[in-house]
Amino acid sequence: MTVGTLVLLRHGESEWNAKNLFTGWVDVDLNAKGETEARRGGELLKEHGLLPDVVHTSVLRRAIRTSEIALHTADRHWIPVRRSWRLNERHYGALQGKDKKQTLEEYGEEQFMLWRRSYDTPPPPIDENDEYSQFSDARYANLPPELKPRTECLKDVLARALPYWYDAVVPDLLAGKTVLVAAHGNSLRAIVKHLDQVSDEAIAKLNIPTGIPLRYDLDDSLHPVTAGGQYLDPEAAKEAAAAVANQGR
Amino acid sequence: MTVGTLVLLRHGESEWNAKNLFTGWVDVDLNAKGETEARRGGELLKEHGLLPDVVHTSVLRRAIRTSEIALHTADRHWIPVRRSWRLNERHYGALQGKDKKQTLEEYGEEQFMLWRRSYDTPPPPIDENDEYSQFSDARYANLPPELKPRTECLKDVLARALPYWYDAVVPDLLAGKTVLVAAHGNSLRAIVKHLDQVSDEAIAKLNIPTGIPLRYDLDDSLHPVTAGGQYLDPEAAKEAAAAVANQGR
Repeated sequence: MTVGTLVLLRHGESEWNAKNLFTGWVDVDLNAKGETEARRGGELLKEHGLLPDVVHTSVLRRAIRTSEIALHTADRHWIPVRRSWRLNERHYGALQGKDKKQTLEEYGEEQFMLWRRSYDTPPPPIDENDEYSQFSDARYANLPPELKPRTECLKDVLARALPYWYDAVVPDLLAGKTVLVAAHGNSLRAIVKHLDQVSDEAIAKLNIPTGIPLRYDLDDSLHPVTAGGQYLDPEAAKEAAAAVANQGR
Repeated sequence: MTVGTLVLLRHGESEWNAKNLFTGWVDVDLNAKGETEARRGGELLKEHGLLPDVVHTSVLRRAIRTSEIALHTADRHWIPVRRSWRLNERHYGALQGKDKKQTLEEYGEEQFMLWRRSYDTPPPPIDENDEYSQFSDARYANLPPELKPRTECLKDVLARALPYWYDAVVPDLLAGKTVLVAAHGNSLRAIVKHLDQVSDEAIAKLNIPTGIPLRYDLDDSLHPVTAGGQYLDPEAAKEAAAAVANQGR
């Protein structure tokens, strides 16, 4: 059996990344820098001959547009597309729409980092009627209330992403396909935690840079041949990961 | 049973439309005017509250980008996407890449109009090694040789589009969905011919304007409630259809 190749791609800068706001499930667009990052991602796929046979995205615009721009750039715009809310960014609860720096100042370093990086401490839940809640969003209309998050920690993201991983992504990998997953910082960290069996503590320090495809070759048991995978532009990945770690400062 | 609503959307101006070249299966992009048309199509969907639940496209970039732009504009970028070569533009055979005006002058009005508009006369077949043939294109790698067209007339397009219509589009309609089909002049004419039972003669004069959503409400037997459907912008549709009819002049 030849298992396919997994390629993870985190969306580039969004309008709210640039404004330093917590975004979560709020459906903001890429900004011009984010579009450039997506094009660069597509160029890297093309340069490395790593051509996706299928793409899986979240239902959020910034991941969808990243996949569209990258795939048009790599001349793979015509491949099958699958989307799921299970690949969405972590729901940031009541912090959605809040300024990261203000939140840091208001709650202090310890609480701030707990919300941002702890494995199992979610932010306070969002109110259904909050302007940044997604309770009446048509795209989640078929989700029963108990599946609509009011807040999530990374552990919650892993729990809701894993069924999609097993039911939708794994079958494509077992069919030998090159599978692109275009998603978000935390849904991709959840997948990486699962794949590389990263501990609950170590995952706190793992940042995935934006716009740089991360390639995982997998063995017959779907274990990574190289732990942590391989970035198509390792130098840029190193610099970018450092920048992500400094967000909110 | 409530049958869903069908919405047909023909892609806007492409780089080769503007140059007046026969395109067919050559995978050219939209130009700036075509992007504007796609945005206008999305605005019309939004204004009319005609919000697609699922989109079907060809595997050609100009239809794919039209759907992406229109759906982002209508805030429906997150809906499921289905693609098939069976929705592709008519394969224009050896005319692909040729100038329409030159072809008109070289072969004369009668032959030119026969190739462009007759129901069952295809242009001469393209050579496998022609730079504008798609014989080695990765997206058709799983098609057996007998399914890869060397040329097509509208009758051929209908024959290859109909299985996709029945197997992929009709089930979505029977499930009550609003179904967007973003495709091409001739694949959409084929669907309209089937739906409205247009005669082989009458279809020659039927032009579908670009960028203006065409809505079909269907009865339980999937027959149009209003023959010919309803354009979301009827005035613009009338003007545009006239312009299409004059192509190559």
